Amino acid sequence: MKTYLVTGCAGFIGSNLVDYLLKRNCKIIGLDNLSTGKKFFLKDALKNKNFKFYKIDLLKNHIDKYFKNVDRVYHFAANADVRFGLKHRKKDINQNIIVTYRILETIKKNKINELIFASTGSIYGEATQIPTKENTSFPIQTSLYGASKVSAEAIISAYSEAYNLKSYIFRFVSILGDRYTHGHVYDFIKKLKKNKNVINILGDGNQKKSYLHVADCIQAIDLAVRKFNKKVNIINLGTQECLTVKESVKIICKILKLKPKMQYSGGKRGWIGDNPYIYLDTYKIRSTGWEPRYNIKESIKKTVKYLLKNKWLLKIKN
Amino acid sequence: MKTYLVTGCAGFIGSNLVDYLLKRNCKIIGLDNLSTGKKFFLKDALKNKNFKFYKIDLLKNHIDKYFKNVDRVYHFAANADVRFGLKHRKKDINQNIIVTYRILETIKKNKINELIFASTGSIYGEATQIPTKENTSFPIQTSLYGASKVSAEAIISAYSEAYNLKSYIFRFVSILGDRYTHGHVYDFIKKLKKNKNVINILGDGNQKKSYLHVADCIQAIDLAVRKFNKKVNIINLGTQECLTVKESVKIICKILKLKPKMQYSGGKRGWIGDNPYIYLDTYKIRSTGWEPRYNIKESIKKTVKYLLKNKWLLKIKN
Repeated sequence: MKTYLVTGCAGFIGSNLVDYLLKRNCKIIGLDNLSTGKKFFLKDALKNKNFKFYKIDLLKNHIDKYFKNVDRVYHFAANADVRFGLKHRKKDINQNIIVTYRILETIKKNKINELIFASTGSIYGEATQIPTKENTSFPIQTSLYGASKVSAEAIISAYSEAYNLKSYIFRFVSILGDRYTHGHVYDFIKKLKKNKNVINILGDGNQKKSYLHVADCIQAIDLAVRKFNKKVNIINLGTQECLTVKESVKIICKILKLKPKMQYSGGKRGWIGDNPYIYLDTYKIRSTGWEPRYNIKESIKKTVKYLLKNKWLLKIKN
Repeated sequence: MKTYLVTGCAGFIGSNLVDYLLKRNCKIIGLDNLSTGKKFFLKDALKNKNFKFYKIDLLKNHIDKYFKNVDRVYHFAANADVRFGLKHRKKDINQNIIVTYRILETIKKNKINELIFASTGSIYGEATQIPTKENTSFPIQTSLYGASKVSAEAIISAYSEAYNLKSYIFRFVSILGDRYTHGHVYDFIKKLKKNKNVINILGDGNQKKSYLHVADCIQAIDLAVRKFNKKVNIINLGTQECLTVKESVKIICKILKLKPKMQYSGGKRGWIGDNPYIYLDTYKIRSTGWEPRYNIKESIKKTVKYLLKNKWLLKIKN
């Protein structure tokens, strides 16, 4: 029986991954500092004898002991907040760069041979090539979050080159689904719950974004790790669609049966570093036979329904 | 009179830059921790009333006070040791990523609007496109040094996007010339001084490398900063030639009037992360009218002669 370690195991994607892996006959060591992750998301996993959870700080605590006899590391812990990156700049540096470096050192020390890393489509900045391929031109970063993920990717590939480490770097579009607790869709539902008559939209609402359902995301990761076998494997994950922010809001409003007045802050970008058009080329992952089960509309609907069922998640501070 | 701040001011390139700038009627604040930099390199500068030197550690000391009323920062301090990056991994992370982040925070705090950054052609990893253009495909890093410089570049561009900061990122080939104290040419001279009969060459000697003379490098930087005006300017610096390691050794031997037996460790790469073929496309910098004064052979010759004149530099531990 294989042992996998998952960092950020109580996070949105991390906890979904843990549930998925536990169904596939393996032992899971889960690490999370519960700063944004929630133990509630692990309630099923914690009942499983093959799951061990440790509340630890990957930046400050000794982490070596958790990496003994581990066959593969899923490094999903991160500061995932692209929009407010400029407000707490050290967070991106520490949580996304330094923590990744510490994980790599511990992987090296314990001779672990496989690393799966959650990166982001944000690293393409404002891409000139759309849909954006994995090998697109070297980008100029527009967000500190993207910059910190580029840094982590670069350090991972240098370790893979030097040591016996196969790495899988997944560049995600925005992920939706059960346990989703931050991002566009979350913000809009929260705003509409507060005020059903008016909705403020950052930018002109014409920013085109891509979304993928978390179940599709995790299945793609699982498949890619089986199919790709290079020293460093970089794979975009997304659907073959995108949607304007305005359209997302309309879908949400329809489900909530609301007709608010839409107010726009104006400008092409919602905030500094906001990318007005995200659409990744997913030929590589689709070459494995993978196809997403849910299209963007279905993903948004499922997410809204989940949040309405778990209204307390709309009240938390992220 | 403008005030420029130079980090790594006592280093090889930094000290040449200081001398160049002091001739152009400006005040220079020079910072260096003298870990690899040498005060000897500043002996002319220290006689100039427009130069102020401070021995400080950019990673640990408070640096804010040196950045008051500065018009432009040249951030040249770095761990420049690509070959031994894997032996002291934390050095690349700290000296090249964290220090750059600290510099950017201080630039932001003091509302400085221009940053010149010394990056490297190593960030292209093993490029598929040769000569390698600035906008080549996003690379997989093969050295931790390259990875740390990619990270620094990414963080710089995110700060430029967010704040009123124009940045110039120069990707150098290997730089040669007066005060050169580490790299291929230095190592070969050192080895030949120890043993004139046999020279050990890492790899098969057929690695193709590019070199540029430090005087040409600094003149190109000065010109580029005048001519390019984007938020983020990325510019390759090199000559339109490259040379095999074997040929470099032959030139050095000829100057030293030695005929050692050449022994090769074998393999395409001299060490893990060594890039067997570095040749940058320099169309962009040449579009300004810039041309290097010295070709590679002349640069090597000048460097060997300088080191023979300053033999004590061959005895230092770097």
